[in-house]
Amino acid sequence: MLLLLAQGFEEYEAAVFTDVIGWSRVLGNEPVEMVTTALKSEIKCTWNLKVRPELDFDNVDVKDFDAIAIPGGFEDAGFYDDAYDERFLNLIREFDREKKVIASICVGALPIGKSGVLKGRKATTYDLSNGVRRKQLVSFGVIIQDKQIVVDRNIITSTGPATGLDVAFKLLEILTSNKNVDKIKKLMRFTI
Amino acid sequence: MLLLLAQGFEEYEAAVFTDVIGWSRVLGNEPVEMVTTALKSEIKCTWNLKVRPELDFDNVDVKDFDAIAIPGGFEDAGFYDDAYDERFLNLIREFDREKKVIASICVGALPIGKSGVLKGRKATTYDLSNGVRRKQLVSFGVIIQDKQIVVDRNIITSTGPATGLDVAFKLLEILTSNKNVDKIKKLMRFTI
Repeated sequence: MLLLLAQGFEEYEAAVFTDVIGWSRVLGNEPVEMVTTALKSEIKCTWNLKVRPELDFDNVDVKDFDAIAIPGGFEDAGFYDDAYDERFLNLIREFDREKKVIASICVGALPIGKSGVLKGRKATTYDLSNGVRRKQLVSFGVIIQDKQIVVDRNIITSTGPATGLDVAFKLLEILTSNKNVDKIKKLMRFTI
Repeated sequence: MLLLLAQGFEEYEAAVFTDVIGWSRVLGNEPVEMVTTALKSEIKCTWNLKVRPELDFDNVDVKDFDAIAIPGGFEDAGFYDDAYDERFLNLIREFDREKKVIASICVGALPIGKSGVLKGRKATTYDLSNGVRRKQLVSFGVIIQDKQIVVDRNIITSTGPATGLDVAFKLLEILTSNKNVDKIKKLMRFTI
């Protein structure tokens, strides 16, 4: 799977993927390889971390991946500068065209909406701040759902950071199995 | 607060602090400033991220902080190379001497144990892998507790990644208030 990092992504919303997939890669029944990419060679997160992605964006080949994950981020940290960039949107379109899994958390749903692939389809995004993010998603022709997580065929969207782990485990379930998810949840001490 | 990053730290166990403290800094009632530091100028995490800390380790002054947080990490990723370094251990000793809060997740408890400040005190750490991490903590004179989270005066320890958010919110509660924690949990969509 590919983890697509926009400028100003939220650390937590990326870390749910790196860690859930990582624990599964090292200790799971069915290893999932993951690689990070971004439009820039160094990304300043919403909060404290400065991160260097592994794969140059120009070298991403959709054929190499089964899924893409998109963490959300804060507007003030420059999230939409990258997330609304045509190259970012085109990559989302390519993953959708090939019916590959697209998983997002919080406002990670917005570039998916802007790319056009959610037109007439169901999705959700952050609901507070007077619902401004949900209105934006509606403006992209999305049928908004007042739910914590929405799965519309290959596309997963969710409301806020609190849904991050559920989205990451849902993605792991799709890529591997329930049995593998149960094992990883236990190893990470979510279950006894 | 200071976020102390060892080589091979787990992304998720650092991100719970960056995001919980970050959301509180921007949207909370009582802002908490946070800064990251590490022994090296670039850190490779356990999983995918390469991270550049903000503050040079040599410029850390304990007087500037009320608390320190230590995420765990995987041995194979080099966690103990940094976490057992004398400079790392000395910083922990200084924070304890000043009775400042020391919060850790998973094997983040081990350098605290090795520093000596937990001798004769109660703590916990990761319990699976045949209990090897708990045995190491016992070898540092720690009274091990079979609990998810243990608070012994100024020191917080916990079992695994799953406890990360609880440790971060506990730290936020100590540094601010229950009311502020409730607000941030709601904004991050953990509560309605």
